[in-house]
Formats: sequence, structure tokens, C-alpha cells
Amino acid sequence: MKKVAIGVDIGGTNTAIGVVDELGNVVAKGNISTRTDGDVDRYVDDLSSAIHELINSVKLLNPEIEIQGIGIGAPNANYYAGTIEYAANLAFKGVVPLVKLLKLKFPELKAISMTNDANAAAIGEMIYGGAVGMKNFVMYTLGTGVGSGIVVNGDLVYGDDGFAGECGHTTLIPGGRLCGCGALGHFEAYCSAPGMKRTAFELLVKYNATDSLLADKSFNELDSKMIFDAAERGDKVANEVFEQTGKWLGQGFADTAHHLSPEAIFLFGGPTAAGDYIFKPAKESMEKHLLTSFKNKIQILPSQLKPGDAAIVGASALVYQELNKM
Amino acid sequence: MKKVAIGVDIGGTNTAIGVVDELGNVVAKGNISTRTDGDVDRYVDDLSSAIHELINSVKLLNPEIEIQGIGIGAPNANYYAGTIEYAANLAFKGVVPLVKLLKLKFPELKAISMTNDANAAAIGEMIYGGAVGMKNFVMYTLGTGVGSGIVVNGDLVYGDDGFAGECGHTTLIPGGRLCGCGALGHFEAYCSAPGMKRTAFELLVKYNATDSLLADKSFNELDSKMIFDAAERGDKVANEVFEQTGKWLGQGFADTAHHLSPEAIFLFGGPTAAGDYIFKPAKESMEKHLLTSFKNKIQILPSQLKPGDAAIVGASALVYQELNKM
Repeated sequence: MKKVAIGVDIGGTNTAIGVVDELGNVVAKGNISTRTDGDVDRYVDDLSSAIHELINSVKLLNPEIEIQGIGIGAPNANYYAGTIEYAANLAFKGVVPLVKLLKLKFPELKAISMTNDANAAAIGEMIYGGAVGMKNFVMYTLGTGVGSGIVVNGDLVYGDDGFAGECGHTTLIPGGRLCGCGALGHFEAYCSAPGMKRTAFELLVKYNATDSLLADKSFNELDSKMIFDAAERGDKVANEVFEQTGKWLGQGFADTAHHLSPEAIFLFGGPTAAGDYIFKPAKESMEKHLLTSFKNKIQILPSQLKPGDAAIVGASALVYQELNKM
Repeated sequence: MKKVAIGVDIGGTNTAIGVVDELGNVVAKGNISTRTDGDVDRYVDDLSSAIHELINSVKLLNPEIEIQGIGIGAPNANYYAGTIEYAANLAFKGVVPLVKLLKLKFPELKAISMTNDANAAAIGEMIYGGAVGMKNFVMYTLGTGVGSGIVVNGDLVYGDDGFAGECGHTTLIPGGRLCGCGALGHFEAYCSAPGMKRTAFELLVKYNATDSLLADKSFNELDSKMIFDAAERGDKVANEVFEQTGKWLGQGFADTAHHLSPEAIFLFGGPTAAGDYIFKPAKESMEKHLLTSFKNKIQILPSQLKPGDAAIVGASALVYQELNKM
């Protein structure tokens, strides 16, 4: 081991920090609280101390390591400005110049960079995962929400203002379900984990399916893992949830494909653990929606990033993208 | 005048050729028939002769001109391979290696390149038109069909196989109108010129609007120009066609924006002559569909390419993109 990069994943309550080697393995991990009092300066102090401690602990065992830089994944991150902007899930108010503040703490590092977690996952897939060698692909992260990261000609697409890749907020069903963002009918309202739960209850209602394995769970209890388990046990409603979710995913993927003609679409997140239950109908539906010249070319693949470490690993990969640009 | 580029626009019956100066002005124009017998070799002979003649005619007046290359816009063009592939509207069968064949005729030219007409229009806009200086924008061409060309970081997006930018075939209304490609509910089935005609008849039916200025035209007669003229005369159905088309355009543009976060979306083609009738509702609808972080940033602008020459001019611009890459 020689070169390593620091990956930082900022979540609503917790910030995870990892030292990642060139193969994408996390060799050391740490954690701090994402301050809920909104005090940015103290948060940066906490974060810097934790990173320094982690580096020192790794250097004890491997004195020869070289820190390449720090990559950060955060909600509402503006890559160009190095800022977190009006993040609803974080206590920090307004625009936080996190990259600038960290550069003051680590003046010796050339690459300190930040983007949102779905973009970081896409870069992680390209640097360490299943997209090594690919120049054109799209990453969809399915979780509480739906994020996405787009790679064109080997570069992540940030767009004019740094916020590109919000495919979760394209319109799937005009006038349809209320999305978390306040708009109607967005992809995220159908294809996220809560979207699958909503579909399950829609089907319970439609069939009055009192005999379904899902019929004993409350709206707040049911999750995508339970739907998967029920599907494995042959539950009809659960199976139809996957069929229907796959159809919606495929419709959205076809829209993305018609924009970008990617080599592959990668899926990451809880619902993808269901494997063929979700990949098969998604692929069938995408093919059905594609122009002839696009058919049978685009792969839908599971992410090769390890679920637990993906956010840290993805963020750390940003460092290598930055160094490549210098 | 010194540097010029040759632009070639291949249509179903006619191939237009132009000599274009560095400002995007067509200084000489020619025409040949796009052979309907499918004889590729004779077509390439015809095309080469016509280009040579045109160059010679321009050199008579301006002996000092330097030909930079040939850019070609054609349906179903594969940029990477330099081929036209299975073009439904052309008589040539299968895969035609047009760029290779033309290189044999013009061995002295470094840049001979081909893409589809919407991509060529996007490059034209960037080299000579309203997108000069922009790095991230999208061009939508509204005509018999809907084409699009996407520019990211100053480069046209071709995707993995050369066919990216088919935004006209994203799904706007699931299960909706039949699209020319055979699928249902595509953007093109609503926002092309024939799409507007279909909307007009949908509204005539809905309101039984026997008093509309559009009620005396047959389905085959009515065109988008007539709808515009009727709207200008205060016809309610015609006005609602523009309102509704604008809403659909805006929904599609928001999807594109959420993918790419462009600085601007340019519109080209017949229906755009209606100006505010179409731009205003399109902008309002796009804003309504956008995430907060995208709102009030993205311009919807009319193309600055002259309608008559746009295809030739756009194709010629490909030459400068190619030379920039060398």
C-alpha cells in the first residue's frame, strides 16, 4: 500500500470518514457527529481532527503511505463552488464553503473536492467498481430518494451550475404521486424504497388483498426488504410490486438512454438486493421503450461498490478524478 | 474571406451543399438529387463532383480561400463510424460508409465528418449562433419530427455508440399517442409540427368547436403555420394548442434539465416562428417542473441559425469541432 485517499460521507446525523487504498478498500474508518447546532467552524474543527487522527493511526502501521487528497460526498453539494447549499437535511444554514475551509486545515493536499453522494458513487464505480474502462454510463442510486450520476466521455457531468444528474426528479407519470420535492409524478415517487412501499399499498387497495403477506404491516412499518422477502415466498402483491417498479424503472432508464446513449446503467441501493426481481422487468421495460437503434446495447448492472462502504469509497474516488484533471 | 468549410445536408430527395465562411455565412450553394435507386457509389461520385464544382466556382472569385473540411448532416448518421445506418427515409440499404468513401475523393482534407442533423444544428449554434461561448446547452429541433443535440463541457454528446441525443423519443405521456417510431406517448408525438396538428384536432373534438378557424381544414391540410395564424386572429382552439404544446415542451425540457443542468435550451424549426405563443408557456411549464435548485437559471432561446441555411451551416460547423480535437 502506498497511495491512499480520504473519503468523507456527510449525512444528516453522522459523518463517516475512511482511508481508502488504490483498489477501493477501506483500510481505516472513523465517525463524527454531523453537528446539529449548525456551527460550521466547530464542525470543520471536528472533521479535521478526526481526519488527522485517522491518518496518524494508519501511518503507525504503514509509515510509507501518501495521502492523495480528500473527497467529500454531501447532500446539495456544488462541485464547482465547493459549497453545500441550502441542504434541507443538514443543520448548516445557507451556503457553506466547506472545501475552502478544509483547504485551510490541509494546505499540503492538492486535491480536496466535493460533490453529492450519487455523483460520488458514479465516480467510485468508474475508479474502483464495475465501470472501470467505461467512458459513458449512468449511476442510479435507489434509497430513501433516487439520486443519479452521469458520466460522458469519462467525465462526470456537472452541467452549467454543478447540479446536473437529478434524474430522480424527471416526470414519470404526469400529475401522479406527490414527490418529496413537492412536484407530482416524479421517478423518485415510484422507484425509491418508499415508492415501492407506496406501490405495495396501492396494490393491496386495488385487490383488497387481505391474504397478502404485506397486509399485516402498517404504512410506516413496511419496507423494501419486507417486500422482497414476501416476493421470495411467492406473495402475489409483492411480486407485482417488483414487476411494476421494474416497468417504471425501465421507462425512466429509456428516457436517460435516449438522452445519453450510455454503455451501461448501474443500480445501487437497498432495492437492488432483490436482484432479478427488479433487474429483469427493468431491462424488459427499458428495451420496450427504446428506439430500434438503441435496443439490445445498453446493460443494466448492479453496482460493484460494497454497500456499507460505498459512500466513503465513492467520495474518495473524487480525489483521483481531480488529480487526473491537473 | 479565407477559411471556409463545406456543409452537406442529406435529405430524403435532395442533398444541399454549401460553402460556409467562418462567420457562418453561406457564400455559395449547390444541390444534387439524393439518388432514389440506392446506388451509393454513383451518389458519392455525384456528391464529390458537385462539391468540386462549387469549390472551383468560389475560387474563381476568391482564389485565396482555404477549404478546412467537409461536414455532413444526415439521418441515422453514426458519428463514430462515419456511416449512415438503416435510414428509413433514404434509399441506401444497410450501413453506408459515407465518410470513408468521401475521404477517398478528398484525400487532401483533414476533417471529413458526419452526424445527424439535430447534432449538426447544435454544433452550428455553438460555432456560429446563439451558443457561442456556452459549454453546456441542448438544442431541440421541432419539425416533422423532434431531434436534439446535447453539448456538455463544450463537446457534443455522442454516447457509447454515436446515437445520443434522441430526446424526441423520451416518454411524455405513458400509454399516450402513437409515435412515428411505433412506441406510445413520446415527446415527438406531442411537440412536433404534426403533434401540434393532432392537438388541434383533439381540442376541436373536445369542444365540438365548429366556430374555430381550424374547423374548415382537413387532417391532412392543417399545419402549424395555420394554427399560428389562427392564434394571431384570436382563435381559442389555436391559442390552446400553443398553451398545451408549451406545457408539454416544458415538461420534457425539465426532464432534460434534471439530467444535464444546461445553461440554455435552444429551439429550432417551424413551430418556433410563433415566438411567445410557444416560448412563454414552455418556460412557465419548465419552471413549474424544476427542482428549486434549478429554477430561474435555464434560458429557453430561439436558435440564431437562419432557417433556410441552418442544415448546411450546422453541418459545416462539424469541421471546426473536428479540427479543434486534432
